[in-house]
Amino acid sequence: MPDVRGLRGVVPYLPTPLTSAGVVDEAALQRLVDHLIDSGVHGLTALGSTGEFAYLDFAAKERVVAATVEAAKGRVPVIAGVAATTTVDAVKQAKRWAELGADGILAVLEAYFPVPDDGVIDYFTAVADATDLPVTLYTNPNFQRADLSLPVIDRLSHHPNIAFLKDASTNTGRLLSVMNMTEGRIGVFAASSHITVAVMLIGERGWLAGPSCLTPRQSVRLFELCEAGDWTGAMALQRELWAVNQVFARFNLAGAVKAGLTLQGFDCGQPAPPQAALSPDAVEEVRRVLAQVGAL
Amino acid sequence: MPDVRGLRGVVPYLPTPLTSAGVVDEAALQRLVDHLIDSGVHGLTALGSTGEFAYLDFAAKERVVAATVEAAKGRVPVIAGVAATTTVDAVKQAKRWAELGADGILAVLEAYFPVPDDGVIDYFTAVADATDLPVTLYTNPNFQRADLSLPVIDRLSHHPNIAFLKDASTNTGRLLSVMNMTEGRIGVFAASSHITVAVMLIGERGWLAGPSCLTPRQSVRLFELCEAGDWTGAMALQRELWAVNQVFARFNLAGAVKAGLTLQGFDCGQPAPPQAALSPDAVEEVRRVLAQVGAL
Amino acid sequence: MPDVRGLRGVVPYLPTPLTSAGVVDEAALQRLVDHLIDSGVHGLTALGSTGEFAYLDFAAKERVVAATVEAAKGRVPVIAGVAATTTVDAVKQAKRWAELGADGILAVLEAYFPVPDDGVIDYFTAVADATDLPVTLYTNPNFQRADLSLPVIDRLSHHPNIAFLKDASTNTGRLLSVMNMTEGRIGVFAASSHITVAVMLIGERGWLAGPSCLTPRQSVRLFELCEAGDWTGAMALQRELWAVNQVFARFNLAGAVKAGLTLQGFDCGQPAPPQAALSPDAVEEVRRVLAQVGAL
Amino acid sequence: MPDVRGLRGVVPYLPTPLTSAGVVDEAALQRLVDHLIDSGVHGLTALGSTGEFAYLDFAAKERVVAATVEAAKGRVPVIAGVAATTTVDAVKQAKRWAELGADGILAVLEAYFPVPDDGVIDYFTAVADATDLPVTLYTNPNFQRADLSLPVIDRLSHHPNIAFLKDASTNTGRLLSVMNMTEGRIGVFAASSHITVAVMLIGERGWLAGPSCLTPRQSVRLFELCEAGDWTGAMALQRELWAVNQVFARFNLAGAVKAGLTLQGFDCGQPAPPQAALSPDAVEEVRRVLAQVGAL
Repeated sequence: MPDVRGLRGVVPYLPTPLTSAGVVDEAALQRLVDHLIDSGVHGLTALGSTGEFAYLDFAAKERVVAATVEAAKGRVPVIAGVAATTTVDAVKQAKRWAELGADGILAVLEAYFPVPDDGVIDYFTAVADATDLPVTLYTNPNFQRADLSLPVIDRLSHHPNIAFLKDASTNTGRLLSVMNMTEGRIGVFAASSHITVAVMLIGERGWLAGPSCLTPRQSVRLFELCEAGDWTGAMALQRELWAVNQVFARFNLAGAVKAGLTLQGFDCGQPAPPQAALSPDAVEEVRRVLAQVGAL
Repeated sequence: MPDVRGLRGVVPYLPTPLTSAGVVDEAALQRLVDHLIDSGVHGLTALGSTGEFAYLDFAAKERVVAATVEAAKGRVPVIAGVAATTTVDAVKQAKRWAELGADGILAVLEAYFPVPDDGVIDYFTAVADATDLPVTLYTNPNFQRADLSLPVIDRLSHHPNIAFLKDASTNTGRLLSVMNMTEGRIGVFAASSHITVAVMLIGERGWLAGPSCLTPRQSVRLFELCEAGDWTGAMALQRELWAVNQVFARFNLAGAVKAGLTLQGFDCGQPAPPQAALSPDAVEEVRRVLAQVGAL
Repeated sequence: MPDVRGLRGVVPYLPTPLTSAGVVDEAALQRLVDHLIDSGVHGLTALGSTGEFAYLDFAAKERVVAATVEAAKGRVPVIAGVAATTTVDAVKQAKRWAELGADGILAVLEAYFPVPDDGVIDYFTAVADATDLPVTLYTNPNFQRADLSLPVIDRLSHHPNIAFLKDASTNTGRLLSVMNMTEGRIGVFAASSHITVAVMLIGERGWLAGPSCLTPRQSVRLFELCEAGDWTGAMALQRELWAVNQVFARFNLAGAVKAGLTLQGFDCGQPAPPQAALSPDAVEEVRRVLAQVGAL
Repeated sequence: MPDVRGLRGVVPYLPTPLTSAGVVDEAALQRLVDHLIDSGVHGLTALGSTGEFAYLDFAAKERVVAATVEAAKGRVPVIAGVAATTTVDAVKQAKRWAELGADGILAVLEAYFPVPDDGVIDYFTAVADATDLPVTLYTNPNFQRADLSLPVIDRLSHHPNIAFLKDASTNTGRLLSVMNMTEGRIGVFAASSHITVAVMLIGERGWLAGPSCLTPRQSVRLFELCEAGDWTGAMALQRELWAVNQVFARFNLAGAVKAGLTLQGFDCGQPAPPQAALSPDAVEEVRRVLAQVGAL
C-alpha cells in the first residue's frame, strides 16, 4: 500500500450496511469492500456522509471501522470519518480509529449552535493532534452548520497532520482558490457535486464520493484517462457518467446508494429511520441511469 | 403538583452544569433547581437547547434527567428533552426519561440529510407512542435542519400524547396561526425570541426559555401580571426585561446563561468545547443588563 | 387633517388599479379612496409594495400620487412611496411627490448589488433631505436585498425628517428592540405579517398594510379597541381577522388585494405581467375568508 | 462579422462609464470599445450586471446601446441587455435595442414579488418573440429573485430565438446538466464565477464577464489555448488569472471593474450612488493583481 499522503484517485464513500434491526451488517460490508477493491479503487472512506455518520452511535461506528479495515486487508488505505459536536468526542473517535488500524481520518465538525472561527480551528487542530494519521478536512455547506472559510482552511493547512481537503460544495471555483492559497500544503479531493474531469484538470487528487460505489470501474477509467492527459476521452466518458451524479443529487444520498447497490446485488439494507428508503419511482430512475452507464 | 397537561407559566430551560473535566456537575444542578423553584417557576426543562443536548452523550443525559428529577422532588413538573437523528435513539431516550421520573417530554428532531414531512411525522409519532407522558414538539428554524411546517403540526396535534408546541422562531404571527389551526388541541409555549406579553395576550401558556434561569422572580411577576389582565403593568415590566432577551440573542445561548449564573453565584462551568466561554466584554454586557433589571 | 407626525391608526397600502392596457385607472383609484376614507381609515399609502412600485415607471407613479392626493382631498394624509436603486432617482421622486401634495414619504431602497451600511445611510439621508415631509423608513427582509440593521435604524432615527419605521419582517421582537433603542425618536408601524393587537400592546402607532384595503371597518374597529385598552375585546376580533393576513401571506400580495377588491365591487384590474392574476381556487379562498369576517 | 448564433469566445461585460453628473460618458465608452476590440475580444455585452443595468433609466440605456453599436462598427457583435420587472418594459427595450442595431439580446428578469415558473416562461418568451435577434438567457441566483430552474431552461431552449444561456452561479456542475439536458439547442456561456478552462473543457462557448475588460489579451490567449486543446498550457495561464476573478468576487463588481480600468488609463467614473467607489485599500488590491498578470 502506498503512503496515504500520496493518495490520488477514486476513494468511494462507503454506505453503512444495516440489517432491518438496525445493526451493522459486517458481511455485506465485507462483500462490498472486496468488490470495490477488485474494481480498482484507490482507497475507501468509512463513515462519510454516505456512511450515515450522523445516524450511528460510537459502538456502531467502531464496528464499521473495524470491519472495513479487516475487509480491506491493507490492499488500499482506509480513511475513517470522525464527526462530533464536541472536541472530546472527536478526539476519542480519532484515537480509537487509529487503534483499529485506519490509515487516515476524515474530520467533520457537527454543530448545533454556531461556532466562531477560533472554535473551528481548535476542533480540527485537536483531531489532527490526536494521532499521527493524515487528516482530511471535510466541508459541506449544504448540510453542516459550521462551514470552513478560506482563511480557516489556510490556517489549518499549516498543521503537519492536515493533509487533504474534501469539498462538498457545488462551487468548483472555490477549489482553485484553495489550491492557489495553500500552495501545495494540502491536497484537494472533490465530491460528487463537482465535475470530475474539471477538478482533475485544475489539479486535484481525485474524489471521495458516494456514487463511485456504484460505478467503480467507470470511475477508475475516468481517473486514468485524466491522469493520461486524454482530456477529450475523459470528457466523453464524463458526459455520460454525469447522469449518475445528477440522480444522486436529487435523492437522499444514503438511500440512493443503498438502492443502487441492491440493484447490483449488494444488499446494504435501508437508511436509518426516519430517513426513508427510496420510492419505487426513484429506484426506477436509479436503475435506468445505472443501466445507461453499463453499471447493471 | 398539578397535572402536567394543565401546565402554564414560566418553565426555565436549565443549562447543564459541567465540571472542567466535562462531567455533569450534579451538585450545581441541585442548587440551581432549588433556587428556581424557590423563585416561583412553574416547571423545569432539562436538555433543551440551553441544556446543550447536542453536546452530551446518552450517559450524560441520563445523569442530567435523574439529577433534575431528584432535585425537583415533585415540587414542579420536569420536562426532559429527547433529541436524536434516528427514531430508535429517540424512543430509547423517551422510555428511559420516563423510567427516571420525568413528567413530560420535549421532542426535538435532529437531522443531517433533509427529512421529508412523512419522516418528521413518523419520528414524533414514535416518540409520542413510546411513553404515556405528554410531549412538547420543539421547532427552531434557526438551528435545526428539519423544521415543522404548519400542516405537520396540524397532523401531529391529533395524537393524544402530543400536548404542547414550543416555537423558537422569531415569527410571532406563526404562533397565532398554529393556535387558530389546532383549535385547542395543543397548548403553545414561546421561546425567548418572542415578546412574552404579546404571546400571553394571544393566548399562549407561557414560555420555555433559557433567560428565565437568570430572571426567575421577574419572569414569574410578568406572568402573573399577564394572568391578572394587567397588560399595562405587564408591558412596563416587559419593556425593561426585553434587554435580557436581546443580550441572549446576541451571544452563544449556553455560554450566556452560564456566564450570568456564575455572576449570580451559581457556577455552572463553561459550554462544552469547541463552544467558547463568553469573552470578558460579553460577560460585562450580561452583568450590566442583569444589574439593570435587578437580577444581581 | 392632523399633523402627519402624530399619525396613528390604520393606513392601508393602496393597490395601483391598472387597465388591461396597463394604464393607471384613476377613476377606480378615486372610488377606492373614497370608500376607505368613508370606512374610517386614518391615512393612505400610495406606491407601497402592494401598490406594485417595482412595476411602474416614473410617469405612472406620478399619476398614482397625483390621483391619490386629489381623491383624498385633505381628509386624511397621503404617504407616497419613493423606491429606487439610485440616490438621484429617489431624490427626484421625493421632490416630485412633495410638489404633487403628498403629506409624507415612504422610503424604500431597491438594490441589485449589495449595499454596505454607509451607502444605506447615504440613500435614506438624501431622501430625507430632499423635502421637509416626514419620512417612513421601510424594511422588508423577504423581498429586498438591502435590509436595515438595528444600528442603521438607530443612526437614521436622529434625522429630523425621519419620523417612522415600517417593518415588514415577521420578527415582532425586533420591533420592541427598535422602540427601546430609538427612545421615541421614531414611531413604529407594523405590516400585515405582524399581529396587530400584539404590536399595539407594545406601543406601536398602527399599521401600514395591504389587507386593510379589504377590511377597513374591521381594522378601524380593532384599532379603536386597542386604543381603548380593551385588549380582550381586541384579541377576540384579532383572532378572527388573522385569517385574512394568513391568506395574503400565501398568495401574491398585489394579486390577492386586487382579487379581493374585485369581489367587493372595486375592480382594480390585475397585477402587471409577468405577475399572475390569482387562480380561481385562490380567489375562492379569498372570498371565503372575506365572507367569514363580514367583508363581503 | 460572423453570424451571432455561432458566437464563441471572450465577450466582455462592459461597464457603463458615467460622468460625475451621472451622465453616460460616450467618449469613454468609445475608447474602451476600441481597446477591447483591438485586444481581440470576440464580442461585447452592453448593460449586463457589470454595466449597472439596474441603475440606469430607459434613456440612459438607449444611449449606452447606441454608443456601443456605433463604437463597435460591426467589427464584433454587440449583445444588449434587456432587464425589467414587467413584460411590457422588457419588450419595449428589446425592440428598441434591435432598432439601434444590437446583434443580440441578453435577457434578465428582475422581480420584486416571487414569480412562478409560468410567469418566468412568459416573460422570456415575450422577449424572444419581440425581435428576431438571438437571445441569451441570464441567470444569477446571488442577485436575482427569480432564478431559472432546469425545467424552465429546458422549456425555453425550444424557442427558435433563444440561443444561449449565461450562468452566473458558482455551480459549475449545473452547466453540464444544462448542456446534457438541452442537447445542443442552446449554447452555454460562463461568468467570472466559473473557472474558464473547466467550462471550456466541458464544452461551453466561452464567457460573458466583467473582468475580461481588464485582461482582454490574457483572456483571448486563454480561449485560444483551450480551442487548440492545449489544456496544460491553458491551465497554467488559468491558475494565474484566477486571482483576478477572486478579487472581483470580493468587491462590488461595477466598482472593481471601473477602478481597474482607471488604473489602466480608461477612466469610466464611479458606480452610481449609493453604490460606493472602491476604498483605497481595495484599489490597491486590484492594482496588485492586475500587475501580477501583466495587465498594467
